[in-house]
Amino acid sequence: MTQILIVYATDYGNTRKLAETIAAGARSVADTEVVIKTAEEAKAEDLQAADALILGSPVHMGSMDWRVKKFIDTVCSAFWMQNTAVGKVGAVFATGSGYGNVGAGAELTLLSMLNNLAELGMVLVPLPKSTEGYAKSGLQWGAYARSAGENLEQTGVSDESLVAVRHHGAHVARVAAALKGQPIFG
Amino acid sequence: MTQILIVYATDYGNTRKLAETIAAGARSVADTEVVIKTAEEAKAEDLQAADALILGSPVHMGSMDWRVKKFIDTVCSAFWMQNTAVGKVGAVFATGSGYGNVGAGAELTLLSMLNNLAELGMVLVPLPKSTEGYAKSGLQWGAYARSAGENLEQTGVSDESLVAVRHHGAHVARVAAALKGQPIFG
Amino acid sequence: MTQILIVYATDYGNTRKLAETIAAGARSVADTEVVIKTAEEAKAEDLQAADALILGSPVHMGSMDWRVKKFIDTVCSAFWMQNTAVGKVGAVFATGSGYGNVGAGAELTLLSMLNNLAELGMVLVPLPKSTEGYAKSGLQWGAYARSAGENLEQTGVSDESLVAVRHHGAHVARVAAALKGQPIFG
Amino acid sequence: MTQILIVYATDYGNTRKLAETIAAGARSVADTEVVIKTAEEAKAEDLQAADALILGSPVHMGSMDWRVKKFIDTVCSAFWMQNTAVGKVGAVFATGSGYGNVGAGAELTLLSMLNNLAELGMVLVPLPKSTEGYAKSGLQWGAYARSAGENLEQTGVSDESLVAVRHHGAHVARVAAALKGQPIFG
Repeated sequence: MTQILIVYATDYGNTRKLAETIAAGARSVADTEVVIKTAEEAKAEDLQAADALILGSPVHMGSMDWRVKKFIDTVCSAFWMQNTAVGKVGAVFATGSGYGNVGAGAELTLLSMLNNLAELGMVLVPLPKSTEGYAKSGLQWGAYARSAGENLEQTGVSDESLVAVRHHGAHVARVAAALKGQPIFG
Repeated sequence: MTQILIVYATDYGNTRKLAETIAAGARSVADTEVVIKTAEEAKAEDLQAADALILGSPVHMGSMDWRVKKFIDTVCSAFWMQNTAVGKVGAVFATGSGYGNVGAGAELTLLSMLNNLAELGMVLVPLPKSTEGYAKSGLQWGAYARSAGENLEQTGVSDESLVAVRHHGAHVARVAAALKGQPIFG
Repeated sequence: MTQILIVYATDYGNTRKLAETIAAGARSVADTEVVIKTAEEAKAEDLQAADALILGSPVHMGSMDWRVKKFIDTVCSAFWMQNTAVGKVGAVFATGSGYGNVGAGAELTLLSMLNNLAELGMVLVPLPKSTEGYAKSGLQWGAYARSAGENLEQTGVSDESLVAVRHHGAHVARVAAALKGQPIFG
Repeated sequence: MTQILIVYATDYGNTRKLAETIAAGARSVADTEVVIKTAEEAKAEDLQAADALILGSPVHMGSMDWRVKKFIDTVCSAFWMQNTAVGKVGAVFATGSGYGNVGAGAELTLLSMLNNLAELGMVLVPLPKSTEGYAKSGLQWGAYARSAGENLEQTGVSDESLVAVRHHGAHVARVAAALKGQPIFG
């Protein structure tokens, strides 16, 4: 059984919708168990038990929500110190207004979360351009869905933007299964 | 008189169109002279003479075109070694297919160019969200225009995406004028 | 009179020491007033009154301390929405263990803070290689001081690492003075 | 048999030394075959045949050498277009002067290469802090060795800085073996 932990923050429910979609994608892979927690709920034992951590956040000023950062600083950093997340699998997702038609900081937001996963020693799963739905909501670093229209009007994330998101969850579950128990890092 | 140097690479003419639009914006500021060169034409004496350097590139695999990088490695790096571009002004722009609806690597492309400008000791000019046209083609790090449709069909950059681009040129000219001759870095 | 606001978080007092050193550097420039606040103390009116914002943080897992991010999410983001920090000046600094002898994530930490400043529309001040003391504690994006030895033993930041830090404060004060009242962004 | 392709550029032989050390590390894993090419020699058929691509570069102005970028733009980009590198494994390494004692741009250099690997759809292998030798030459994104002293005097890379580098090669070989033939991305 592969254990996937999804940790996220949400303001208006859009990032929660992505978290649930990722979870559904992960669960579509046989022998996968998923736990979803908000960044404020997630505890060290959740990460301890997980084979993969998928972090999600709204885009706030080009980086992750402070609550996700607090989870990293107060929960994940002890795993860094003790090398106890080395060899797990990591991936990321985000939502945002997309103001400006160029991602509005989504790329560095995804990267700021991946950075923490890399520091923990996790093998990182990108989102390949070949993924179904990529043309609607894809970026190399992970899945993203736009939650507002061109003039910042709140529209919520569209169903078609969730297609790639769902596949992202399945990809991570498969990498985690393939690497589980492998003595990668000696 | 403020001297602005624009250096760019282009594949299909889109980035050239942005370079010319930035130049027009810069020239709209009184007492500004603009030189435009491709990355293969630009020489050390061009940078020597400039008060500001504006770098532009197509997005290629999430970073700048290799010809822009060659300009940096073979021309700019001597300025780094000798500290001879310290206190000039820097800014960036890009074009790209935008595949994925999230910028397609535009953010890290702009950043990879800014990084070089920061190493040279240049004061950096972002693109504020308040800029006219930002909703069509704006990112915090600089100006961007999308050159393809949702399925990678070549459309070229639209006129409306050039509005923010033009302002970006004027912004840089004004910062360069304000800082010219100021002993900022001692 | 130029007003400089320094906002930081600190765990063991190292980042506070840098904040105070930056402040001393800024005050060494005539007609400069400096306000220093922790990220938890700083309020919207502090940023409103400032001509420049200098953000500082310990390096935590390759990005800024969550308290600095909370300041950005809860205080700065309203300035983004209303375009009320456009044209101010921004700069960054950090401290960290430096584990690994390659910066230990300092570069992306400085960048994650600069990213927020760029989104606010601030003109960004890098740290030029020509700065006195750069060989001890310099990076293109801003000032940094290492607070631990090679094996993570806490040593605190050295006096010689503070030389470039102090100059960084003076640089920012000079850029802020030169740009104050200039209609850069129209 | 797992096939590893190492592609690099070198100015003074330091990055070549790392390439050869990575190769030795990869070959220490059973059933691994390694091909090393400079960025100017490497061809599409080399990447086609590989299960993993490890890219290495000197740090030049905070990003990869233009010859590595040319390899990416002229060889790798066709794999992006055709989705023919999706599911391979990727990793990176670098050398540099380290001027400033904070990595001197090594972090964004490693990231600029990883960015290309992510765009290709490769699963990314970080360098865990628990790796032997990390205290001498480790960064979360990959292996790095410093080639100059504090005042830019050329020293070459030290033997002790190569310890983590060698492990990095073995890590990548093991991930590539574990993922080979797995239908990760559907």
